[in-house]
Amino acid sequence: MKIAILGGDGFVGWPTALHLSDQGHDIHIIDNLSRRWIDTELGVQSLTPMDSIQERCRIWHEETGRRIHFHLLDLAAEYERLKAWLAEAAPDAVIHFAEQRAAPYSMKSDRHKVYTVNNNVNATHNLLTALVETGIDAHLLHLGTMGVYGYSSVGAAIPEGYLDVGIETLTGETARQEILYPTRPGSVYHMTKSLDQILFQFYTQNDGLRITDLHQGIVWGTHTDQTRRHPQLINRFDYDGDYGTVLNRFLIQAAIGYPLTVHGTGGQTRAFIHIQDSVRCIELALSDAPVRGERVRIFNQMTETHRVRDLAQLVADKTGAEIAYLPNPRKEAEENELVVRNDQFLALGLDPIRLEAGLLDEIVEVAGKFAHRIDRKRVPAVSAWTRDLAAQVEPDPEATRLRSVS
Amino acid sequence: MKIAILGGDGFVGWPTALHLSDQGHDIHIIDNLSRRWIDTELGVQSLTPMDSIQERCRIWHEETGRRIHFHLLDLAAEYERLKAWLAEAAPDAVIHFAEQRAAPYSMKSDRHKVYTVNNNVNATHNLLTALVETGIDAHLLHLGTMGVYGYSSVGAAIPEGYLDVGIETLTGETARQEILYPTRPGSVYHMTKSLDQILFQFYTQNDGLRITDLHQGIVWGTHTDQTRRHPQLINRFDYDGDYGTVLNRFLIQAAIGYPLTVHGTGGQTRAFIHIQDSVRCIELALSDAPVRGERVRIFNQMTETHRVRDLAQLVADKTGAEIAYLPNPRKEAEENELVVRNDQFLALGLDPIRLEAGLLDEIVEVAGKFAHRIDRKRVPAVSAWTRDLAAQVEPDPEATRLRSVS
Ligand SMILES: NC(=O)c1ccc[n+]([C@@H]2O[C@H](COP(=O)([O-])OP(=O)(O)OC[C@H]3O[C@@H](n4cnc5c(N)ncnc54)[C@H](O)[C@@H]3O)[C@@H](O)[C@H]2O)c1
Ligand SMILES: NC(=O)c1ccc[n+]([C@@H]2O[C@H](COP(=O)([O-])OP(=O)(O)OC[C@H]3O[C@@H](n4cnc5c(N)ncnc54)[C@H](O)[C@@H]3O)[C@@H](O)[C@H]2O)c1
Repeated sequence: MKIAILGGDGFVGWPTALHLSDQGHDIHIIDNLSRRWIDTELGVQSLTPMDSIQERCRIWHEETGRRIHFHLLDLAAEYERLKAWLAEAAPDAVIHFAEQRAAPYSMKSDRHKVYTVNNNVNATHNLLTALVETGIDAHLLHLGTMGVYGYSSVGAAIPEGYLDVGIETLTGETARQEILYPTRPGSVYHMTKSLDQILFQFYTQNDGLRITDLHQGIVWGTHTDQTRRHPQLINRFDYDGDYGTVLNRFLIQAAIGYPLTVHGTGGQTRAFIHIQDSVRCIELALSDAPVRGERVRIFNQMTETHRVRDLAQLVADKTGAEIAYLPNPRKEAEENELVVRNDQFLALGLDPIRLEAGLLDEIVEVAGKFAHRIDRKRVPAVSAWTRDLAAQVEPDPEATRLRSVS
Repeated sequence: MKIAILGGDGFVGWPTALHLSDQGHDIHIIDNLSRRWIDTELGVQSLTPMDSIQERCRIWHEETGRRIHFHLLDLAAEYERLKAWLAEAAPDAVIHFAEQRAAPYSMKSDRHKVYTVNNNVNATHNLLTALVETGIDAHLLHLGTMGVYGYSSVGAAIPEGYLDVGIETLTGETARQEILYPTRPGSVYHMTKSLDQILFQFYTQNDGLRITDLHQGIVWGTHTDQTRRHPQLINRFDYDGDYGTVLNRFLIQAAIGYPLTVHGTGGQTRAFIHIQDSVRCIELALSDAPVRGERVRIFNQMTETHRVRDLAQLVADKTGAEIAYLPNPRKEAEENELVVRNDQFLALGLDPIRLEAGLLDEIVEVAGKFAHRIDRKRVPAVSAWTRDLAAQVEPDPEATRLRSVS
């Protein structure tokens, strides 16, 4: 298959490109490299030393003889170039990772909110319009998140995207209707994923586009079978307070003798998936494309749930790190349960990699190896959700206090 | 009160500005005049001769001694100027009309789809972010539409924005939850209003903004008490296939001896409101602001429903015009019922102006007076929702055939 990977220079996009190239697919990465620019803006860098995308593609070719093509293109700002590229390339599938994906970054300031909405909505909508306009019948896979539902649910399991509701008709009967499971996004980032769902629903219904929306959990781990093949194929690893995700961050903190920073009581339960399973899930979803006229397929792409403080404990037990409980910069429930259905991927044959202490060794090793590249000042999460919360978080003194503790 | 009217140069915005100015409020219109540019793009003009906004404001001052201030500003593209203006002006209320509002225009081509989404989403989101950032606790009133729900419902009455649903919990009980009434927008334009709802829900929940969303029906009529006061205060009147709305279009068609163009069977039932009631509703909603922490208030701003073919018959009976049944360029149900709750406005004291033959006289008169300004080629609705429908509509031969019929 000819596959376009939008956002293929990113944390999940790059290993996906390698995995699918390895299977013999013809891979085209489209990326505007905005994520690298954001590293520059924030004064951080991936823990792992990443080469340029061009160099990464060259190394892959050297190692395997396979080519991954790279196209510099901004989905949100360059509609006409996107359309022209699609018309010419005519891919069989398009995998869409190309959005600003960090909740804390999306809440940093008004500029970041405006950027996130503008970038994500236009990227997704331009892609949909261009698919309709070029008439290309590609299977579109999009990366979404379960976070669109918020985490203060009524204690129900999160289904795969839809809810059957009863609506009272004019004659007093109850009609059943299947609706998109109602969303309650908790950040501007999550909100854009909720907007995406409405875009997908419309373009499926009006134009018969074939779309799979993968509601992904928090990705942990760093290597896949392919990134291991050469040091310069190594994956991005974010550890900073904006882009670093919880489990990977704890492992980094442990590696540099920084206390594990738990927000609030750490009672938040979240869904997780290993990066290796993430790329496998995408492969499975690719192999099972919806037909024209079918509603949007929604899969929960996760394998297990954990409470944040339990993860901290796991890492502390393993590494001897301390745990520091900090005020929570996010507006969210202190404690929540989370049960997520993932029957569809299990049915397609996913055999989940479960979180065990043993599996953390590899990440501990990566963290240790590159610990000298870490800027400790960038470790705390300081983007506050509201003015009131910002007053409580006070980034700098916190960072200092933490350093003296460790 | 100091009131900002965003989109105050438009069809509903202008009479609203006059109405509220007349009541003694301090009115500031913000508009980028994009609607006038779209007239230029489409090669059409308002049936009624409209002066520039600056001249209209000058005449109003001459007539009444009151000032309406005009600020040229693009909400979607000029976030920083918007924020600076809000911070300085600190309005008590903001009425947001400033979106691309025609469904046919939004479906004209990919460029129009991209423009509509970019303009409407960014306009609304920039406004919300700027309100949070400046800390201005203004009541925000937004104009939405019932069209977000689509028109192929299960035969239930359209409630005022929310639906109470049962969700099965993990313990097997059913928990009740109130959700935004599920949307099924039928055009890119309607879709943007569905996106707006998610933005409002988020900013109400995260930042305590106070928002009223007015789901308005199709506006008919042209004059209000204030626009009648001077010929140069006259309201915009759109008759073309993109911006002209159904009842006003029939009256124009009758005035120029053009058959009344009914799409499909004309079995579509739609909700209506007279422009005079529209401005009254806005006044009523202004007087009844939500408090901080309250969920988004959603009002259905309409007074009655009618089937399109019945409206055609009403106008035909009155004027002797013929009715022409044409292929429907829209993807929609041929026939639908529509029952809409509007209890909230009735409770606030709205005394609806109902559609009666007598009330049409005024519009027939306006239509007759300015009939010489009409370009007959611009009367048919030609924007097709999909490629397949476009093939059926065939605009030009249609226009010719119609001219020879009349
Ligand atoms: N990482 C996770 O834990 C996680 C969890 C759930 C969902 N997701 C989703 O998976 C997707 C990928 O996540 P990731 O962690 O790889 O993110 P990432 O930021 O590492 O990668 C995203 C890539 O998209 C590119 N991009 C952004 N906007 C673009 C535009 N307008 N035009 C072209 N390219 C653009 C960036 O440059 C970057 O390379 C995202 O949509 C994210 O929301 C990720
Ligand atoms: N007219 C109707 O029948 C009707 C029915 C239901 C809802 N509505 C809603 O009411 C609102 C007003 O409708 P209308 O008929 O007056 O439309 P209109 O097109 O006549 O007026 C909209 C005004 O907003 C301005 N505008 C658009 N984008 C802008 C931007 N980015 N920055 C600044 N100004 C901008 C335009 O120049 C125009 O003057 C719209 O939101 C519409 O969706 C109208």
